[in-house]
Formats: sequence, structure tokens, C-alpha cells
Amino acid sequence: MTRDMEIICVGNELLIGKTLNTNAQWIAKQATATGITVKRVTVIADEINEIANAIHEALQRKPHFAIITGGLGPTFDDKTLEGVAEALNRKLAVNTTALRMVRERYEAYAKEKGTETVELTPPRIKMATLPEKTEPVPNPVGTAPGVRADLKQTVLIALPGVPSEMKAIFNETVAPLLKQASEKSAFYERSIYVDGVMESSLAPLIAKVMRDNPGVYVKSHPKGREGKPHIEVHLSTTSKDAERAEAELKKAIMQLSVMIGEIGGRCVFCE
Amino acid sequence: MTRDMEIICVGNELLIGKTLNTNAQWIAKQATATGITVKRVTVIADEINEIANAIHEALQRKPHFAIITGGLGPTFDDKTLEGVAEALNRKLAVNTTALRMVRERYEAYAKEKGTETVELTPPRIKMATLPEKTEPVPNPVGTAPGVRADLKQTVLIALPGVPSEMKAIFNETVAPLLKQASEKSAFYERSIYVDGVMESSLAPLIAKVMRDNPGVYVKSHPKGREGKPHIEVHLSTTSKDAERAEAELKKAIMQLSVMIGEIGGRCVFCE
Repeated sequence: MTRDMEIICVGNELLIGKTLNTNAQWIAKQATATGITVKRVTVIADEINEIANAIHEALQRKPHFAIITGGLGPTFDDKTLEGVAEALNRKLAVNTTALRMVRERYEAYAKEKGTETVELTPPRIKMATLPEKTEPVPNPVGTAPGVRADLKQTVLIALPGVPSEMKAIFNETVAPLLKQASEKSAFYERSIYVDGVMESSLAPLIAKVMRDNPGVYVKSHPKGREGKPHIEVHLSTTSKDAERAEAELKKAIMQLSVMIGEIGGRCVFCE
Repeated sequence: MTRDMEIICVGNELLIGKTLNTNAQWIAKQATATGITVKRVTVIADEINEIANAIHEALQRKPHFAIITGGLGPTFDDKTLEGVAEALNRKLAVNTTALRMVRERYEAYAKEKGTETVELTPPRIKMATLPEKTEPVPNPVGTAPGVRADLKQTVLIALPGVPSEMKAIFNETVAPLLKQASEKSAFYERSIYVDGVMESSLAPLIAKVMRDNPGVYVKSHPKGREGKPHIEVHLSTTSKDAERAEAELKKAIMQLSVMIGEIGGRCVFCE
């Protein structure tokens, strides 16, 4: 059974085009490699209602995983946990485990600097203020812990938006969860490149290959232009058996490359 | 009055992490520069139901503009127009203007190659098969026309996913629409860089600057780590008056840099 995921990215910087959403791509790639199907990515602003609505809507679609990034930091516009609390209809409260994590991090910083006292100011306590019945997830490289809620249908995990912190928590805590859930299935992919055939002429060939090779997904990505075509054809499948996946992709590529030859096209990486 | 926009990106390649969503960032940047507020980006798979649901949900939130990218091409998995038709509860039919656009494009390709006949195959006719009561938008650099539907609350525009085609149609047709709608307001931004202050210590300063400078949005982006902080602080405002916008941003930066100095921080680009 395939497990699915939704990704929710919080941050005005994504909506004004200041920041390219590399977090969504990175998470999607990791999840896909583990055999998880990412069904939707939603990007919303640093506003409690927007965050709560996006989470509420995602949970209604019952994905196995809902991964949220961004908005866990110390500033007033880090509002993700308020949004999670509203979506789950739970109160926010200081979580003692999270507070210990935050304090230890600032104590380590103080030690580095040679200062002694660590003040747990409101912005720092904020990072340990979690929706009730959720648990903090250790952040190996930064101050704000991740947050996990095991809901009826969905495991919801909120991660910081800073890529280094997001990736560190993901690798340490989320990836093992996904691997376990996907029951060892994995994603296999290959790309071939086709010259001399317009995408509109390639279309019926791709449709035939997909009909003849169930389980193999084939998609064309035009890299030139229709008049002077250079097309990447991406073939992929999800399987628990690497050899079988490879054989299936090879068979589909073989069939496609023969048909491309028949209509006068040239195929690269098709052996 | 601020005009808002939702962006919907269609494509499995975005959900498997194969492709970085540069289209969403590019569109968000252009729209923001024109004074339009992008409220949400949604990424969904090449499936009719997924596309129809995402569009239906977006339209219920009544944005002034809904921009859809991807899924307009000739292959079987280019399903955006089927999704639009389902979301709008309209039938699909060959649009004669669109068919003329597609034919002229293939005639030009044939001329380049020195061949005479142009066959309007089903995959090519597909690109001219539009939801009823929508109109094709000329594609200056590719075969698939864009599609525009003027709905009660929302102008919906579907663009191809190939970046060069998306940008060409956007610049020629969408950008002028946005400029007209936003009534000449524009987006102004500046970034300063702060060293030697942790984000948690900067948080109350930013909150104060935002309280004292209504209309100016201030957001911190940690670039180092909390223990050895290097923080970009991004200030932005939307205004019809460039000089006033600049003065407002300068005032906010001045106030912030004084406060940063007071707590021992160093500020770059703050003059």
C-alpha cells in the first residue's frame, strides 16, 4: 500500500518570490526516494488563519504524513505552532522537554562565548511553547525543536524553515519514520533524451508505452522548443524489488526507443 | 485596495522533487513587484480530480487572479484543461481561434524544415480543445496557447509549464492585466545584515519597529546559526508613491540600526 504525504511551507518570503522553495523540492525528493507519494505542496503566508486553514484542509484529505516547514523561530511572525494549535483545536503551553532542549542549546552558545548566564527571554520560551499533546523533536543544529503530533490518520511534523535545520531534523527523525511506513519500497527513475521528434508526435508513443507497461510512469519534458525539439523523457516506477524495477524500466525504454526510431527520431541513453 | 492572486502549479515532476518550482517563484516575484499580493501557491499532480479540486478550492477563496501553470501540452498527461473544465462545470470543445493559433505554429515549423503538409493530429488538436466560454491567449514562443476565463470574482489564466513559454505569455498578456488591476501600486524592499545578535534577541526589536512603522513589514532570515548569528533583515512595503515608500523603509532601518547598536550588534547596509 502506498503511503502519501502533503507538504505545507509557511513563509511570506516564498510568496513574494524572494526565496526559491528548495525545501519543498528537497523533502519531496527524499520522500519519493523512500517510496512515499507526495500528493500536494501548499505555500502560505505567516498568518495564523492561513496556516490553520491549510493544515485543516490537508488533514481532511487524510495523508499519512503532513510535513510543515517554516515559522518555528523566535520572532513574532513565526506563527506555525499557533496555526497548528488552531487547526487541531488545542491550547498552546510551555512544553518542559522542549524548554530543556532550548535551554541546553543557549547554554552551549553561552559556553562557546565564555559567558555564564542564559536568560530564557519570551522569544526563547516561545520556541518551547507547543500545542498540547504534541512532542518536541530534537534539533541537532539549531535552537527551535521540531514538533510532532500523532493524529488519528496522519503523523504531522513541523520543521524549521532554515534549510540546514530542516534537513538535520528530517534526516535524524523523519526519514526513518518514512522508511518504516513505506515498507521498504523505493522509487526508481531513468531519463532518456529524444531529438528530432516533436512532443506532439511523441505523445501517442508515450501513451502506448504506459498502456503496455503498467506501473511505469512516463512523462516528456520539452527542453528545446516544439519546432526544434529536444525532449527529456522521464520514466519512473515504485517497487520493493530493485532488479524488477530496473527490468521494467529497461523494457519500457526499449519499446519506446524502437518506436522513436521508426518515426525518424534519435534517442540518447536508450541502451 | 490590494489585489490578490493564487498560483497553482500542475506537474508530477514537482511532487517527486525532480524539478525545482522556479515558475512559482518567478510569477510570485513579478506579481509582487506590481503590487499584487500572492496568497497561496498549490502544487498538485497531473490528475484531473487533483487539478479540479485545487482550482475549485482556490476559486472559493475568491482571489482576483488565479494563475495555473503546467499541463497544457500535447501528451495524455497534460490534463490541466480537463481539470479547469471540471472545476468550472463546463464542457471541452475545440476552440476555432485556438486551433488557428496551433495550425499557424505548425505551419511555421513545417516551413522552417522545408516540408509542406501540416497534419493536425489528435495531440495537436488537444492543445486547442478548451473549456467552453474561455479564450485562448497567444503563445509567442510555443505551440500550446494559454487559456483565460473571466469568472465572476476571478480572472483565471492557465499557462504552459515550460518556463520560456510561461514567461513569454505572462509578459505579453498577464503582466499588463496585473498592472492595470493593481492601480499603479508597487512593492519596495530593502535588506540589511546584522552580525553579533542572536535572532531571539533581535525579535523584540523587530516587533517594535513594525509597531512604530505601520505598513512596513520586517522579517528576519537567519543565514548563520543562532550561536554564531548572521541575519538578513528584510524590510518591505507596498505603495503607489516611490519616494514615500523609500522614506518609510529608511526610517524603519534607521530605528532598527540604532537599537541593534544599543545591544552590541553590527549592522551592514544600514545607512
